[in-house]
Amino acid sequence: MTRVYNFSAGPAALPVEVLQQVQQELVDWHGAGMSVMEMSHRGKEFMQIAAEAEADLRELMQIPGNYKVLFLQGGASLQFAMVPMNLLRGRGKADYVNTGQWSKKAIGEAKKFCQVNVAASAEDRNFSYVPPQSEWRLDPEAAYVHVTTNETIGGVEYDFTPDTGDVPLVADASSHILSKPVDVSRYGVIYAGAQKNIGPAGLTVVIVREDLLGHAPSGTPTMLDYKIQADNESMYNTPPTFAIYVAGLVFKWLKAKGGLAEMERINIRKAQKLYGLIESNDFYQSPVAPANRSRMNVPFTLARPELDEAFLKEAKAHGLVQLKGHRSVGGMRASIYNAMPEAGVDALVAFMQDFAARHG
Amino acid sequence: MTRVYNFSAGPAALPVEVLQQVQQELVDWHGAGMSVMEMSHRGKEFMQIAAEAEADLRELMQIPGNYKVLFLQGGASLQFAMVPMNLLRGRGKADYVNTGQWSKKAIGEAKKFCQVNVAASAEDRNFSYVPPQSEWRLDPEAAYVHVTTNETIGGVEYDFTPDTGDVPLVADASSHILSKPVDVSRYGVIYAGAQKNIGPAGLTVVIVREDLLGHAPSGTPTMLDYKIQADNESMYNTPPTFAIYVAGLVFKWLKAKGGLAEMERINIRKAQKLYGLIESNDFYQSPVAPANRSRMNVPFTLARPELDEAFLKEAKAHGLVQLKGHRSVGGMRASIYNAMPEAGVDALVAFMQDFAARHG
Repeated sequence: MTRVYNFSAGPAALPVEVLQQVQQELVDWHGAGMSVMEMSHRGKEFMQIAAEAEADLRELMQIPGNYKVLFLQGGASLQFAMVPMNLLRGRGKADYVNTGQWSKKAIGEAKKFCQVNVAASAEDRNFSYVPPQSEWRLDPEAAYVHVTTNETIGGVEYDFTPDTGDVPLVADASSHILSKPVDVSRYGVIYAGAQKNIGPAGLTVVIVREDLLGHAPSGTPTMLDYKIQADNESMYNTPPTFAIYVAGLVFKWLKAKGGLAEMERINIRKAQKLYGLIESNDFYQSPVAPANRSRMNVPFTLARPELDEAFLKEAKAHGLVQLKGHRSVGGMRASIYNAMPEAGVDALVAFMQDFAARHG
Repeated sequence: MTRVYNFSAGPAALPVEVLQQVQQELVDWHGAGMSVMEMSHRGKEFMQIAAEAEADLRELMQIPGNYKVLFLQGGASLQFAMVPMNLLRGRGKADYVNTGQWSKKAIGEAKKFCQVNVAASAEDRNFSYVPPQSEWRLDPEAAYVHVTTNETIGGVEYDFTPDTGDVPLVADASSHILSKPVDVSRYGVIYAGAQKNIGPAGLTVVIVREDLLGHAPSGTPTMLDYKIQADNESMYNTPPTFAIYVAGLVFKWLKAKGGLAEMERINIRKAQKLYGLIESNDFYQSPVAPANRSRMNVPFTLARPELDEAFLKEAKAHGLVQLKGHRSVGGMRASIYNAMPEAGVDALVAFMQDFAARHG
């Protein structure tokens, strides 16, 4: 087995220890005589797997008791609709902060359901920063305030938790959930597609404060109603069982690693190594304001873009793959989620130094 | 490794050959240096996996060129909403045939979107048969006619393809898709949750005729619009990649087995063995009219229900599991999908004979 260092933005690298455990028990889970993929979601084996996954996530994120944890489907893109469907609560307006491509998608979808007030936008500087809250123009009548706390494409991460008073704060945390401790009580809803820092694609985690349940209009599709999903413990219908199982193993891996405080220390160190190399060198540039450089998604450009292809080709030959920037941005992007070993970042930094020395 | 015979209605048994292949390539797929779970859905490896899965499904089902194949999320329960959202086409009415618990759920959800005409119902005889089409009262102005071609809970299967003229026929085929050849051209839409006869839970296959695309009202959530999913080849956002990969392996397994005509022969033989034992014996009863007994889901009762627990316990000791009937029906249910080996049915029949002999 030769494993590469996979810098994909998502679906992304998973801990090799988790993959090896999945492999080991794939055909016969713990002597059950069947794969987790074959288990009835209402059988005692899978019910235990799901319960442990939720309990471990609650422990890792210290989720207060008045929040529900939902394991849903459809990704953040479906949440872009489910958030207004569930949270407008008869109001006609919501605040959105626009920090990049994913904010824009969330805004576009919300406009199908309500009047969107863009309280702040970083479009003026090509989405290279998070507008400080002092510049936000929040609408006191907004049903909620929506933020994208880490922009996967732009590599822009919030360096503060917004204060929205009594108006629920809703965060798309898809690409940095579990990368550091978060005070969940500051949010009304936190949601995340799994395929970056949680587990396989096809699972969406939604953490929602209980008082925000039960407000979807009566015509809302059953599957899109947070309250129905909460009342049925995410088993109104068959959930994505295998993805929940793998996510549960990732949660156990994170606990064994020391939890989110330790992950944050590691993630800071990994990010500093990569941004440090970029800063120390005229050959590479980061387009993002230093305070908002994401620890998870590190976009960078080469001073000589004509070398992009050579960079990607040589990187691949070194076992460093999926470094091409998003098609809407260009350049490079290294996604260094929890599962990216520090040795992977070290290998990338060493390669980048060498490449710059040879071509700089 | 000791494998059991798993008669779960879903998630259900998968072919052991498929599971073994998944296991073998789980950590490093075909020398890519990563798991399929870790692959970017837009990378060439996964694009190839998805394209092969679609091509193999098209070949197996002989899907005409004017049909799109969508790989979605949310299960049949989300289709219960997506069907009216996409197919009403400005009309206010739809026909539904009520053959059991899943029909009822589809009807309940459709009522959120339109006036539902229940064209026929088997509720008068406890959902033990399919009302013949001669008794249906179809509304010529209906936007579509919805049928549940195999009721997973009741074990009731259509023995005919309804003729709805120019009105699109829509089928929830979740629990018998791929069990036999079907003339797709007779349908407007066929949909199926994967977790019975296709692959892991978390994937939903939708086969839709092209002229039915593009009619969703403008306020429809983006993720729920068939046309947007079709235009983006099911990659508007990250699809459930691992489930698509496993489904693709199941499709290759079915092709290697001889395709759907051969599967039908095997499924008829398996079903006849089980129903034959039930019929030959006063100890067991099938609640379903003979013409509509499902080849996939075989509910049966014991003449002495006080023996139910002993039956389940002894069956489990023989490696025959998940035979308990659905909580809404009681009794027993053996789901014998494509992946259930004929030897599993033989073992169940032998056990049932022996149990009856000892307790009859």
